[in-house]
Amino acid sequence: MIKDTIVANATPLIPSGVSIIRISGEKALEIGKKIFATPSQIQERKVYFGKVLNRKGEIIDEGLFIFFKAPRSFTGEDVVEIHTHGSVPVVRRVIEEAIYFGARLAQPGEFTKRAFLNGKIDLTQAEAIAELISAKTEKASKIALNILEGKLSQKINYLREKLIELISLIEAEINFPEDVEEIDIKIIQSNLLEVINQINKLIESYNKGRIIKEGIKLAIVGRPNVGKSSLFNALIGYERAIVSQYEGTTRDFIEERAVIQGIPIILLDTAGIRESSDYVEKIGIQKAKEKIEEADIILFVFDLSKGFTEEDKKLYEEIKDKSPIIVGNKLDIAKNLDEFKNDSIILVSSKTSEGLKKLEEAILNKLSISEEKEEEIFINVRHLNALTQAKSVLENVLKNLEILQNQKEILMLDLQESLRYLEEIVGVITTEEILGNIFYSFCIGK
Amino acid sequence: MIKDTIVANATPLIPSGVSIIRISGEKALEIGKKIFATPSQIQERKVYFGKVLNRKGEIIDEGLFIFFKAPRSFTGEDVVEIHTHGSVPVVRRVIEEAIYFGARLAQPGEFTKRAFLNGKIDLTQAEAIAELISAKTEKASKIALNILEGKLSQKINYLREKLIELISLIEAEINFPEDVEEIDIKIIQSNLLEVINQINKLIESYNKGRIIKEGIKLAIVGRPNVGKSSLFNALIGYERAIVSQYEGTTRDFIEERAVIQGIPIILLDTAGIRESSDYVEKIGIQKAKEKIEEADIILFVFDLSKGFTEEDKKLYEEIKDKSPIIVGNKLDIAKNLDEFKNDSIILVSSKTSEGLKKLEEAILNKLSISEEKEEEIFINVRHLNALTQAKSVLENVLKNLEILQNQKEILMLDLQESLRYLEEIVGVITTEEILGNIFYSFCIGK
Repeated sequence: MIKDTIVANATPLIPSGVSIIRISGEKALEIGKKIFATPSQIQERKVYFGKVLNRKGEIIDEGLFIFFKAPRSFTGEDVVEIHTHGSVPVVRRVIEEAIYFGARLAQPGEFTKRAFLNGKIDLTQAEAIAELISAKTEKASKIALNILEGKLSQKINYLREKLIELISLIEAEINFPEDVEEIDIKIIQSNLLEVINQINKLIESYNKGRIIKEGIKLAIVGRPNVGKSSLFNALIGYERAIVSQYEGTTRDFIEERAVIQGIPIILLDTAGIRESSDYVEKIGIQKAKEKIEEADIILFVFDLSKGFTEEDKKLYEEIKDKSPIIVGNKLDIAKNLDEFKNDSIILVSSKTSEGLKKLEEAILNKLSISEEKEEEIFINVRHLNALTQAKSVLENVLKNLEILQNQKEILMLDLQESLRYLEEIVGVITTEEILGNIFYSFCIGK
Repeated sequence: MIKDTIVANATPLIPSGVSIIRISGEKALEIGKKIFATPSQIQERKVYFGKVLNRKGEIIDEGLFIFFKAPRSFTGEDVVEIHTHGSVPVVRRVIEEAIYFGARLAQPGEFTKRAFLNGKIDLTQAEAIAELISAKTEKASKIALNILEGKLSQKINYLREKLIELISLIEAEINFPEDVEEIDIKIIQSNLLEVINQINKLIESYNKGRIIKEGIKLAIVGRPNVGKSSLFNALIGYERAIVSQYEGTTRDFIEERAVIQGIPIILLDTAGIRESSDYVEKIGIQKAKEKIEEADIILFVFDLSKGFTEEDKKLYEEIKDKSPIIVGNKLDIAKNLDEFKNDSIILVSSKTSEGLKKLEEAILNKLSISEEKEEEIFINVRHLNALTQAKSVLENVLKNLEILQNQKEILMLDLQESLRYLEEIVGVITTEEILGNIFYSFCIGK
């Protein structure tokens, strides 16, 4: 059990309507009662209005007091919340006084860490809280929420059970060779295959999740004056118009940020392909290709009013192995369209917005992202590493299963190693290093 | 009664541990229950943990739900608070959904405005909330709190009662001349004098309050190389060292801001007096004097190791009518000190910090600011204007009292005019313009 009591602001330390100071630990109520004039009997989860006091008993604000009794609190410990006006000196003073009366200033993420250590949440859920807080889009917040709700934990725990089952069977066979029948190698095989398959599915989710959370890295390639930047602006502007129509009364909220269907767009700097007329000579195709290497999506743009010129062709040949989406721009002033009317070319006009919806769909299809799959789980890089290692061990076992069949101790050790990787994910097994990495990235007060 | 229901975030819209969304108005509970999975029976001031929902009933977060039943709420109306993770897309979505279900996005200060309109607080208290929130120092927050606690209201209301008493007496005399004795002019006189005296005290508080809240405008004057900027840095550094010693564990909190004994210091740009060796010729004393005209405190600095030179004397003569504090700097390398050892010169060393405490005291004494007077009330510029007008009317009455004694109707009208100015302060009488000015400066969600 953690003995000390921690305190921090749970809301940002800037002027605002309301601020929350949170105290967690054995002395939370005792300390809270010293800095807030409460009735002598406090009921849990009831809101008390009253005076916030300093160590001299002077009033420093009016506010609310809430007591969450362990274990029915966020951290699983006694928690007191004091709500003050969002006044920076008041919040600082309240924290100072809590420290004066025996609390300690919390480290970033320490409340969540305690929730984990006290068994209120597992590690994937703790991470999900940080991801939810830092989410920039609703899609990203939804992904984090799915994990917070325990959906990744369920999958990992299912795989853990599968492995534990196998390990138990093998262990029984090792310990009681006379009493237990030998396990059919096919059972081991099919179980391993199922676990590996499920792991593969999770591993595959990583890249898509990264795109949804961090954004699509978009490279727009094309010779000068085909309208690359106007296309980008049109894409963004088109989306923004839809959003502002939909959001109605809250247009103030729309950030000046590039988003298509809820996914951020990061325009890669393809300088050199941009607007220099002799870019091929100057920078070289090779350089441009390096730039677009990291792109999730490449739009290859040409000018419909000029046709697919020799120069377009030359450039396209150089990048076609990256399977770009081919975009015919300036549809509004195009003349001979017949040759371009096929499924492999998307015809758009940055000016009139014609075709932009189709282009958006093409982008999302290419990334296999659709609106319907919001319930999906997307793992993070820590999960990816652990799963990759678990998988690698299991694949090795599968490959050498016939040999291992006669070396059950080694087989069991391998399966246990794989299990440990899975346990790392949910936090059955943790090291200070893992915990440090996870909680250090939190904001203070969470 | 205000019919529509408003919604806004009460905490800043940036990633953080917790965010509060506040809904106030007749439909608050109805709307709140649509975006939060509550039990069917909700008790007031009880904290419910549960799921935050969007219009489709999908979970968008987990959080807390609190219902404040009218009139026992901040606004005096039904209020619902939803506490979510401090995730920007989540908070936006909750506000969107509240709007979808019939709420309106609140204007800045609209919650406080409703608290005023519903009689929960008067106008001075509403202003105090804004001042408390934007307070940069504890002193400033304490000043705001005193007013929020109603201490200015009490004083104003006492003066109002005095005037109303007088007006009633005079009114009775006008209406029932036969039944009522004529009021002794001395009673009117002494009452008016008391009211004017009290108003004067409040008016005098304005400037000191401004300094405590906004800071001391400090001009440091002296010829080049006497150590003006090192003196400033030493003053600030000295104070910071004291503070960091005192605050102990929370050194992280100390802002890189100049403060002496809790009062911000604003160093006025006395460019021209700064470090140009031929400043007298180049910029002219006149220009420098204009600069220091707006200073609350002027430090005139000379170099003890050089003595009080002709150039010092010349500069001092030019500004001595601003009664500067004379500071002999570089005490650590001074030689002949005897001539400077008198009460009118403060000897300091920016290098060793000797004498800095004395200098601080001299600054605060000059402004009549001391630690003991924290219970004082300091009015703001709106109060100042109203009080000045009330006073001007009353002084006029006092001057012409012998004439007005025989023109009781005019006397009464004058007293009523004066009363109206006082009523403007607490908000018995308000205009849309006054309300607009006050509440427009609030942050949203308050």
